Amino acid sequence: MSKSSVKSDSCTLFSAIIMETFFNPSSVAIVGATEKSGSLPGIILKNILDIGYRGRIYPVNPKYKTVFGLPCFPSLLDIPDEVALTVIAIPAQSVLNVLEQQARKKIGHAIIISAGFRETGKEGIEMEEKLKQVALDNHIRILGPNCLGTMDNYAHFTTSFLPHERVSKPKKGAVSILSQSGAFAVAVLDLAAQEGLGIARMANYGNRIDVGESDLLPFLSDDENTRVVAIYMESVDHGLKFIEAATACSRKKPIVALKVGKGAAGIAAAKSHTGAIAGKYEIYKAAFIKAGIIETNGLEEFIDGVKALSMQNPPRGNKVLIVTNGGGFGVIAADHCTENGLDVPLPSPQLKEKLRGSFSGYYVVNNPIDLTGSASDNDYHIALRACMVESDEYDAAIVIPLMAPQGMTERVVDLISETMTASGKPAIICTVGGSFTTKVKLLFEDRNLPVYPSPERCVKALSMLLKRKRLKDHVMHP
Amino acid sequence: MSKSSVKSDSCTLFSAIIMETFFNPSSVAIVGATEKSGSLPGIILKNILDIGYRGRIYPVNPKYKTVFGLPCFPSLLDIPDEVALTVIAIPAQSVLNVLEQQARKKIGHAIIISAGFRETGKEGIEMEEKLKQVALDNHIRILGPNCLGTMDNYAHFTTSFLPHERVSKPKKGAVSILSQSGAFAVAVLDLAAQEGLGIARMANYGNRIDVGESDLLPFLSDDENTRVVAIYMESVDHGLKFIEAATACSRKKPIVALKVGKGAAGIAAAKSHTGAIAGKYEIYKAAFIKAGIIETNGLEEFIDGVKALSMQNPPRGNKVLIVTNGGGFGVIAADHCTENGLDVPLPSPQLKEKLRGSFSGYYVVNNPIDLTGSASDNDYHIALRACMVESDEYDAAIVIPLMAPQGMTERVVDLISETMTASGKPAIICTVGGSFTTKVKLLFEDRNLPVYPSPERCVKALSMLLKRKRLKDHVMHP
Repeated sequence: MSKSSVKSDSCTLFSAIIMETFFNPSSVAIVGATEKSGSLPGIILKNILDIGYRGRIYPVNPKYKTVFGLPCFPSLLDIPDEVALTVIAIPAQSVLNVLEQQARKKIGHAIIISAGFRETGKEGIEMEEKLKQVALDNHIRILGPNCLGTMDNYAHFTTSFLPHERVSKPKKGAVSILSQSGAFAVAVLDLAAQEGLGIARMANYGNRIDVGESDLLPFLSDDENTRVVAIYMESVDHGLKFIEAATACSRKKPIVALKVGKGAAGIAAAKSHTGAIAGKYEIYKAAFIKAGIIETNGLEEFIDGVKALSMQNPPRGNKVLIVTNGGGFGVIAADHCTENGLDVPLPSPQLKEKLRGSFSGYYVVNNPIDLTGSASDNDYHIALRACMVESDEYDAAIVIPLMAPQGMTERVVDLISETMTASGKPAIICTVGGSFTTKVKLLFEDRNLPVYPSPERCVKALSMLLKRKRLKDHVMHP
Repeated sequence: MSKSSVKSDSCTLFSAIIMETFFNPSSVAIVGATEKSGSLPGIILKNILDIGYRGRIYPVNPKYKTVFGLPCFPSLLDIPDEVALTVIAIPAQSVLNVLEQQARKKIGHAIIISAGFRETGKEGIEMEEKLKQVALDNHIRILGPNCLGTMDNYAHFTTSFLPHERVSKPKKGAVSILSQSGAFAVAVLDLAAQEGLGIARMANYGNRIDVGESDLLPFLSDDENTRVVAIYMESVDHGLKFIEAATACSRKKPIVALKVGKGAAGIAAAKSHTGAIAGKYEIYKAAFIKAGIIETNGLEEFIDGVKALSMQNPPRGNKVLIVTNGGGFGVIAADHCTENGLDVPLPSPQLKEKLRGSFSGYYVVNNPIDLTGSASDNDYHIALRACMVESDEYDAAIVIPLMAPQGMTERVVDLISETMTASGKPAIICTVGGSFTTKVKLLFEDRNLPVYPSPERCVKALSMLLKRKRLKDHVMHP
């Protein structure tokens, strides 16, 4: 290891410890806390209580003695104990005053939820500059303003101000999200809950006057609960620092990014949205490759890639077997494999002969293997065992079990799962249909086999696993 | 009108009448009908009874006197009345014999469900050739073999052999489907049911030894219940006849096509699947444009395009307004507009000033209009009324109401629907989220506003509406 990488590693480790307080604070003060419905600090406090946070909580509001049964303090300065983090969700004009109090109280971290800064023009920019100066002078690290803050499924902490009944909470899992956009972060959490995708931590930093992706990446890189990092960005906080942090992270775990603000219309929109100077897209594109980041185009590809990477390992090569009982779906998958640089080679004569011996004469023993509408669960086992376990002709499988025919039952899930586990190779599932199919989809995903509702998304997800392999090779041996 | 087009119109009219019998027969004989579970003719008979078919039904089976309470006949020749259509779902080896009986009984239409023909090799091809000869000699029109046949939501007729509990039946509606693949047709029906997309008729012709898309298109073209035609094809039955029929149809209603078997892997897969010679994709591509067909890439784009075209009219131009309360989603939509040739122009200074007067200072009055997390339902009404009704600066709207913030309620559906109706311009909706969002999505689609779960699919759907406009202009004024 070279000197510079030792230095970089110790820097990032220090930074990682500082960042943890935003996700897992030992104590938190909620400025403006109230039981009044509709108030942001009130909803945040309620959400922190509901999620089961185990640290100390200090409501701060001169109007009350208690809030939700907790002792309430007139100001930050009146709290008798040390405080790790403040959550500030009060009108923009009052934030500076609170931050100055926080400086005197020596609280090192603030999540500023409040909007009404840079995104509203000149006056807002000036207010932001003042906040930055106070933070700099007093060693306060700030997440925000104009953000949702954090959500942590392991530390049981959240600063979300969205009511429960509107946004589902995803289960605990392997994916952590960094997002410049709050709405995007919320939508991803909600989709993750719907898709059965497990989430570790989320941070949304909005106007990003201090902490951004370059600070947060090293923390997630070292975080053992995070196995995949997912980033939404309109712009980057510090170009070189980000590339360095991302390269280090990519050596350990995949980073999936959605960069928006690409064309003229999108760049203008990003500027209006978070004041981001989106910059030349081509530069981002090159930087992502250099840092081993898997770039995606659009919300669905982003979620699909994250799901595949959190459930399956990359294949060692690009030789794909397609198995289906819906011939047309096999054809669509084959088309999209070609479009995505995946190879769909025919089985060898020996393998073909072996399969022929196990199947009805009208099954199509090529690639795709078409088990036809007469397929039963066990035919999937036979095909996958012969091609993926007992033979080494393929690197990955795309399995498309359509559940409409009578021969197909829920047993197919265990048969496919056990056979693919025995093969040690990745598989991606596509199945399309109504309520019975939905039930089967959930069973597959319980076994970490990611399911997609179209052959083209299934192929794209597999191509992202392969991309991870190639980008990892690239950052390990640049 | 030129002479040749008069001739073509009368030909297609004649063909259309012949084709109707496959969807709406006055009477039907089910060969091999039985009450035994698992038997295809038995399930088909049960499905015909369940769907509420109102024509005469003749079970045919020498083993029974009655089947499901209906008098059963030993053979087709024993039926005392005229019969319009036979449904043949017995082993391949016995089909020829039945078709010869049908010839003697002078039944002019047969749907042959049975598999085990061309797709299984030389012997199967020979059997098909014999069927073709009998059909030709006796003026019998055949749909199939190796197919699901038809489903008609207006005539209440089906030849599906899939059990109800596995495949949902879509509601009656404006879309008719032609599909070479049975599994694809089933999946589309199931997805349509899930998406709230109304279906008129479906035909699947499998090995297509006689009737194919060129015969069926003129029927759907003249069918007043069909407003959008959706075609899945691996190959085409008769190139020139198809282009002529499609061009005539495109003058009246949109055709959306999914052509599969494009690259080497897909072409090989299509050949194994339905014996289709997929041919050079570039030729198809050119032919589709010539015939005004909207080509799509993959299952989802196909369904998405069909949904948009069945619910909204094409815009007159490509100037798009984006309105959202989730800034990041607006940026993604703007990016994808640029990718898809849609223009996202800023509002004029006058329009901007007007909007400024109605909104909070921190709402972003550009394009996208970002109503921020503070948006309420009525803000959508204000933005759309000013930009789409009272101004003529935009041709279409992409509306992205995220339902997580408290200011958003179900009322937003009627506000957007009424405003867009008043504008006379098309709108496409994107909303992303869990169960509350799903409820709102269904309300939008009840009002014929198509909803997509990502900004990129929303933009793509709008671009397909615009493509319809351009292709229609092209076939009307070639």
